[in-house]
Amino acid sequence: MTLKIGLLGLGTVGSGVYEIINQKKGCYFSNTEEDIMISKVLVKDALKSRTLKIPPEILVTDFQEILNDEEIQIIICVMGGMEPEYTYMLQAMEKGKHVITANKAVVSEHMDVLFKTSKKNNVNFLFEASVGGGIPIITTLQQVLKINQITEIKGILNGTTNYILTKMSQEGLEFEDTLKKAQQLGFAEADPSADIDGFDVSRKLSILSSLAFGYHIKENTIYKRGIREVTKLDMDYIDQMGYVLKYLAHAILKDGTYYQTVEPIILSKNHMISNVNEEFNLISITGNIIGELQFYGKGAGKNATANAVVGDLLYIINNHFVPQEILLNHPLQNGNISTFNGRYYFRMDVKKQEEFEKILNLISNYSNQNKIEYSNKKLFIITETLRANDANTLAKKLQSHNIHLFYARIDS
Amino acid sequence: MTLKIGLLGLGTVGSGVYEIINQKKGCYFSNTEEDIMISKVLVKDALKSRTLKIPPEILVTDFQEILNDEEIQIIICVMGGMEPEYTYMLQAMEKGKHVITANKAVVSEHMDVLFKTSKKNNVNFLFEASVGGGIPIITTLQQVLKINQITEIKGILNGTTNYILTKMSQEGLEFEDTLKKAQQLGFAEADPSADIDGFDVSRKLSILSSLAFGYHIKENTIYKRGIREVTKLDMDYIDQMGYVLKYLAHAILKDGTYYQTVEPIILSKNHMISNVNEEFNLISITGNIIGELQFYGKGAGKNATANAVVGDLLYIINNHFVPQEILLNHPLQNGNISTFNGRYYFRMDVKKQEEFEKILNLISNYSNQNKIEYSNKKLFIITETLRANDANTLAKKLQSHNIHLFYARIDS
Repeated sequence: MTLKIGLLGLGTVGSGVYEIINQKKGCYFSNTEEDIMISKVLVKDALKSRTLKIPPEILVTDFQEILNDEEIQIIICVMGGMEPEYTYMLQAMEKGKHVITANKAVVSEHMDVLFKTSKKNNVNFLFEASVGGGIPIITTLQQVLKINQITEIKGILNGTTNYILTKMSQEGLEFEDTLKKAQQLGFAEADPSADIDGFDVSRKLSILSSLAFGYHIKENTIYKRGIREVTKLDMDYIDQMGYVLKYLAHAILKDGTYYQTVEPIILSKNHMISNVNEEFNLISITGNIIGELQFYGKGAGKNATANAVVGDLLYIINNHFVPQEILLNHPLQNGNISTFNGRYYFRMDVKKQEEFEKILNLISNYSNQNKIEYSNKKLFIITETLRANDANTLAKKLQSHNIHLFYARIDS
Repeated sequence: MTLKIGLLGLGTVGSGVYEIINQKKGCYFSNTEEDIMISKVLVKDALKSRTLKIPPEILVTDFQEILNDEEIQIIICVMGGMEPEYTYMLQAMEKGKHVITANKAVVSEHMDVLFKTSKKNNVNFLFEASVGGGIPIITTLQQVLKINQITEIKGILNGTTNYILTKMSQEGLEFEDTLKKAQQLGFAEADPSADIDGFDVSRKLSILSSLAFGYHIKENTIYKRGIREVTKLDMDYIDQMGYVLKYLAHAILKDGTYYQTVEPIILSKNHMISNVNEEFNLISITGNIIGELQFYGKGAGKNATANAVVGDLLYIINNHFVPQEILLNHPLQNGNISTFNGRYYFRMDVKKQEEFEKILNLISNYSNQNKIEYSNKKLFIITETLRANDANTLAKKLQSHNIHLFYARIDS
């Protein structure tokens, strides 16, 4: 068998994919007698010097050269933007080519059209690498769904922020210093917003919960709050409480309503998620028959993500898959965050005596039995159980009085 | 499509399988228009009263009735013994029937012949439920292996002993009392030996490491040591050290030699495995490209295990699989436990003053810089780093002097 593949993008993940397939680093490719290869690679600049050893004649700068190459049966898209990536994927499927992608932005926004196009043209559209890096969560989720109703998804879905929180906790660094370190090491982008403000996590949660609940839930409908405000002082206080701060995604389906949140959460140290460190991810799914399953692995990085991309390729090679209805489109209600509640940790910077009283007055509207500590112009409060909506309203009121704060729910 | 299945065994897991398929508890079966059903069930006693609602006319007591039923294309074997189960599976495949089993004893002992028979007859032989209950470890391992060389497998593979150690640790109970409680709850067998002496775990490790390393490694070649000797006192001491005791399986492949052990291991409390409690399992695999992956879920129980069995069934229904070479049979050496070393915890019952000196003399042959504590006729020793072989020799010598002891390696 000869199988030719077109690769769109030759960044970190693209290079890893090229090495596994064309340089035969993956077992399947070093053992098979089949002739499987990436025959064309779309790049912006074919003349740029690269550390990857790749024959210059397979680099192209015009997508049409790949689209119109009838020998190419499979497209792998490892470019990260919304356009022209989305158009390329649709065009490839319309031409009868299978599409594999790691692009979470396009999948989370356009999965309904992409799935329909895949089915209409009887080609595969696979996206294992879009969530959880090397963790085979999409494949497994779809297998679990054949038997189970999934009622809950929870986990650490972003390696960059988990790296930052781990380093802050273990090395006692401030947020900004840790972010800079992560940027120097290539774990964080120059513009870190997608990671630290939650867009990356909510895109991944959008993909997982849409598949799990059978209904396209777009990223921009998911409540998200970032971790920009967290300080070394918060990490120390939380540690002394016997807890750990993690940046979690959480989705619940209950009676036809889904609830989702992406926010910093305080967890007991003996929770499994609390011991997920560095760039690792952990994803928990709960089915009505199988119970809870958890999956842990590298959430980012060249080899782990490339492994997931190539896993999709081997799925196409080894199976004769007929695209199935993925989104059942039972209409579901968005319950936002109204199911989440818990005790909350608030840390506020108090500059003047008047602020102190103002804060306590504001908080007393929501919670009376609070644990309060004040030291060195910082006020620490552990509230009684609050609804997430009330905690957020309280935080906004405090912020509107120009009070700097960080807050997070305590997962009991 | 009409698909008829023969079910061998109607115990806990068999009942769960019947409910998911024939009572349509599984999503696939309640949604499909295909006619898929268990049409015959092999039982010992067709007249026995059962809580499961099942038409009596589908119960048979003679396997030939299922074997010779040409409408039955798939056999599910959820009987747990070695014979006649092994013969039934071979006969079914020779008759062109696919075989799915949860029987780890047969798979670990006879996988080479079973795989060859499957290939020869072009039928599936699937056994996801034989390891890790509901955790989809066999399927995932085979996918990871297509790209990666697997170098390490580690984890908690037995729900019964993890339940016992969890309860001893959390409720301060003695081993015997916890075992009785587990037996009353149905978590442990009347004869608990397979679980607490390590046969169950080493069978599962045999299956995982044979697949991972591509070479049939039989259960009886794996070093195993049980947890019968552990006491409440050990749990307390280990807890105060800041550690947790778990019953672990561990396999390593290095330069063509494999090393395996099944034994109690002392782990730091912030290790992910330390926080796996009750009947849950955790399996870690490390590949040369993907890095470490961990999988967590219910290692036993009716629904989780039945889910794994039915997952194999859906794999056959949804894929047009051609059986592939599973064991590559590269010859590997058995390095036994010679790669494992670490500090060791020893607790010894010291009845007389003479014993005290004898013990210290014996131990000084292996390790001098030990931490020693004596209280209430118990001697606690934390050794410096010992090789596993030396620690075991030392333990045997102590036991030959009639000294009661418990010992475990500390995982650093």
